Amino acid sequence: MKKLVVHELLRHTLLSRPESEIVSGDVRLPYAQMYDRVVRLADRLGRMGVGQGTVVGVLDVNSHRYLELHYALSMLGAVIHTLNFRLAAEDLAYTIRHAKDEWIFAWEGFAEAVRPLRSTVSRWVWMGDGADPEDGALTYEALVAEGRLVEPDGADRIDEADPYSIFYTTGTTGRPKGLMYRHRDVILASLQIAHHLALYRTGASVGTGDVFMPLIPFFHIHGWGSAIFVPYLGAKLVLPGRAGPAEQLALIRREGVTWSNMVPTQMQMLLDAAGDEPLGLKVLTGGSPLSSGLAQAARDRGVTYSLIYGGSDQLGASISVVPEHVDPTSAEAGRILATRTRPLPMVEIEVRDREGLAVPRDGKTIGEVWVRSPWLPQGYYNDPERTRESYVDGWFRSGDLAVLEDDGTLYVVDREKDAVKSGGEWIPCGVLESLLSEHPKVIEAVVVAKPDERWGERPLAVIRPRTPISPEELRAYLGGLVDAGKLTKFWVPDDFVFLDNLPVTSAGKVHKVSLRKMLGLA
Amino acid sequence: MKKLVVHELLRHTLLSRPESEIVSGDVRLPYAQMYDRVVRLADRLGRMGVGQGTVVGVLDVNSHRYLELHYALSMLGAVIHTLNFRLAAEDLAYTIRHAKDEWIFAWEGFAEAVRPLRSTVSRWVWMGDGADPEDGALTYEALVAEGRLVEPDGADRIDEADPYSIFYTTGTTGRPKGLMYRHRDVILASLQIAHHLALYRTGASVGTGDVFMPLIPFFHIHGWGSAIFVPYLGAKLVLPGRAGPAEQLALIRREGVTWSNMVPTQMQMLLDAAGDEPLGLKVLTGGSPLSSGLAQAARDRGVTYSLIYGGSDQLGASISVVPEHVDPTSAEAGRILATRTRPLPMVEIEVRDREGLAVPRDGKTIGEVWVRSPWLPQGYYNDPERTRESYVDGWFRSGDLAVLEDDGTLYVVDREKDAVKSGGEWIPCGVLESLLSEHPKVIEAVVVAKPDERWGERPLAVIRPRTPISPEELRAYLGGLVDAGKLTKFWVPDDFVFLDNLPVTSAGKVHKVSLRKMLGLA
Repeated sequence: MKKLVVHELLRHTLLSRPESEIVSGDVRLPYAQMYDRVVRLADRLGRMGVGQGTVVGVLDVNSHRYLELHYALSMLGAVIHTLNFRLAAEDLAYTIRHAKDEWIFAWEGFAEAVRPLRSTVSRWVWMGDGADPEDGALTYEALVAEGRLVEPDGADRIDEADPYSIFYTTGTTGRPKGLMYRHRDVILASLQIAHHLALYRTGASVGTGDVFMPLIPFFHIHGWGSAIFVPYLGAKLVLPGRAGPAEQLALIRREGVTWSNMVPTQMQMLLDAAGDEPLGLKVLTGGSPLSSGLAQAARDRGVTYSLIYGGSDQLGASISVVPEHVDPTSAEAGRILATRTRPLPMVEIEVRDREGLAVPRDGKTIGEVWVRSPWLPQGYYNDPERTRESYVDGWFRSGDLAVLEDDGTLYVVDREKDAVKSGGEWIPCGVLESLLSEHPKVIEAVVVAKPDERWGERPLAVIRPRTPISPEELRAYLGGLVDAGKLTKFWVPDDFVFLDNLPVTSAGKVHKVSLRKMLGLA
Repeated sequence: MKKLVVHELLRHTLLSRPESEIVSGDVRLPYAQMYDRVVRLADRLGRMGVGQGTVVGVLDVNSHRYLELHYALSMLGAVIHTLNFRLAAEDLAYTIRHAKDEWIFAWEGFAEAVRPLRSTVSRWVWMGDGADPEDGALTYEALVAEGRLVEPDGADRIDEADPYSIFYTTGTTGRPKGLMYRHRDVILASLQIAHHLALYRTGASVGTGDVFMPLIPFFHIHGWGSAIFVPYLGAKLVLPGRAGPAEQLALIRREGVTWSNMVPTQMQMLLDAAGDEPLGLKVLTGGSPLSSGLAQAARDRGVTYSLIYGGSDQLGASISVVPEHVDPTSAEAGRILATRTRPLPMVEIEVRDREGLAVPRDGKTIGEVWVRSPWLPQGYYNDPERTRESYVDGWFRSGDLAVLEDDGTLYVVDREKDAVKSGGEWIPCGVLESLLSEHPKVIEAVVVAKPDERWGERPLAVIRPRTPISPEELRAYLGGLVDAGKLTKFWVPDDFVFLDNLPVTSAGKVHKVSLRKMLGLA
């Protein structure tokens, strides 16, 4: 490759690992053959008018076609809009309108769900192995078949700073916010994840000999960069489509998968599917805290892990590592890997107070996480107001609360808007949730703010029990942790609520706003 | 860091590994303290007129001051000219004039040798721990002491595409050629060496826990990138100054060095110094072929190695790796690591015939190595003619002869101008030299072209014997290799010459032009 432009990454792979395979459903596609399909698709689309700046929505599970679109649209200078299939149709339509999508590529498995969206764009392409659709839409395989094996004219003129992709992040409040990523942002952010995992001692180490199966959907920052860094490594890539936990497990065993990424909920489901059988796998996880119970269950099954901290508005920022003085097989290493992260190489992370001054690196002073990196997005798409709030002097204000240790280790304790402000002090719900979830009778614990006349707010713990448990038992348990110096007494919740089901967001995280509504707190 | 600008690399290190040390002579400098010295030096130099585009020559062995200059000059937008202290004074003076150096920083240990150069520039700074020089020149430590702890105003405005450094490559013919590297070239090329070593199975793997001691002088592409990638890793860095092999060995043991880089000659000297004692060390080597005898001696002493292929006019291109199906501890792995390389991630390597067409990837068809990468220099400095010859359509024509295997593995057999053209076919001297040097009675073998009426050229072997050996013995030895299918019969030299000393270049390689002159062949 000559420039940091996405499709150019494939040039190295084509020469150095042409036979390495992509496995997707029944398809086994060496990179050399994938490259041919990418070129044919790009040629066909180019002749149909897709070009520099055309926004193309893609709605698919992780498949070889979705991967190919990552590179074919790059060759045309088009912008890939990775659509979040977990969004409600109405929100999805909003993001399509806001990004001005002209085309949509949709997996036929979503046909029923997305039919209302058909009219939102002028060109609709079905992806799948099915027969030609009755509705007269185009099919992906026909486009590939009609394409010539000639790279589009402009492919070499795409610039590093040209827009490559757009994604909408859904907070718990307000409309989705768009993030436009440049080619170089996506390349640098993705590759630095792989480089960090290779350079540091992590629980999700990567090398060119690994077999990768990303469970993080490509819509979410290109599967946390895996749609970019796996082809860069020329490594074997297994794409799970809509496989459920049991099928994922079968794929892992059949294809010799050694590495995956997933949120903790997916990890829990995969471990449940595996039962007592060992599962040797390296996992990059994140998105929500990894409870110590789940972490222990993973270690028991031979699953090693690292935690990634970041998000679509800052991209990858930090990943957990085993410090040099700690035995990587020890329980301490397991605890650190599940909770503490260190900046990716090239990234600067500061924890600042309300005045914007760095807090002491003492492992206890809580402040807000500020991040600077070469791949920081330029701001929210067409949203100058929210951009000004979050992107300040070249830094991104994350809105996350954390402490820094003296060696630069970051411990994110909570989202600022999720934390409880009590008597002028932050009470990080994440810490409480993690400790509560370690209780053997607890599956999951969520702590939310409850209005309080005296303190402003006080923490309320919502418990999803494994077996019946009383508030007294939990109070006694937390009291023990206070006595052991592991918990601040003032943080112990006054109230406990027990629920068997918790409301979740489209990303599978507990939806605290809904939860507080359910409890009559908001 | 926000951009791919050299001094910005330190920002990450400053936050994430501030206590990690640089060891240089009696000095132990944590990165945080080095950063302070860098800022003070930059401040002082800035106020003395060093600024955007000022060319500053540096003549030093690998020291902490040389390392600091890499970052301080970056902050000012100045261009660091890494002077080759092995050049004759006349050639050195030529490069200083051609690059238009305005300042020179010289190590006081070179005082005698470089006195004639004093008048070539307006500002001269001595580096060392000695007393103030009598000649009224400035001293490095005084400049640091006089500087304020304030980053220069323009430090944040340096651009990735601004020139960062200049170096002159000395061929065996013609005047030295200048290469101007941009910030991003130096960063990407350096880091990709580290990333390759971390991602592939190599004999010189790197991680943040390694302790590095580069023996490749910083003048040579910044110590093969180590002046850049070691601070990037925040790893402990041991700078050997002018330590000889015995002192290098003592440093390795005292400081716990795990990784080094060196040419094969340096490796031989280090192994000689170690005697029979094991030396556990990971070594990146290159610059000239690694003979199988030396490779075996290294393995016997617990030294693992990888070979790097590249040069100052293309920067790093490829490094040897152990293929996935080969046991890394096997003799086969040792042989592959000593001879075959694979492209660095992002690099494209093609082997082309005279018409510029790719030769078959069959492991035997010889062609010229063409390289493309994001860090390819823009051409030779102020030398459009030689630039046009070597930089073609975004590719660099290396002038090296090689074969490609079907999996993209590269085996460089010779420099084109060193190879023998016999009966219209290339005879790669490197292959012959490697086989001859495996004979127990041979220390070193060099093959050069001898004019021949019938064939145009025929190979002549120059042998540096360990114990007396006859041409008949060598012919019989090579004949056995022909019979075993390891050597083409036509390649066997007609003549053998025995010499106890061979002429070498400033880089420690055999100077074939001089050798041919000595032998009356040119």
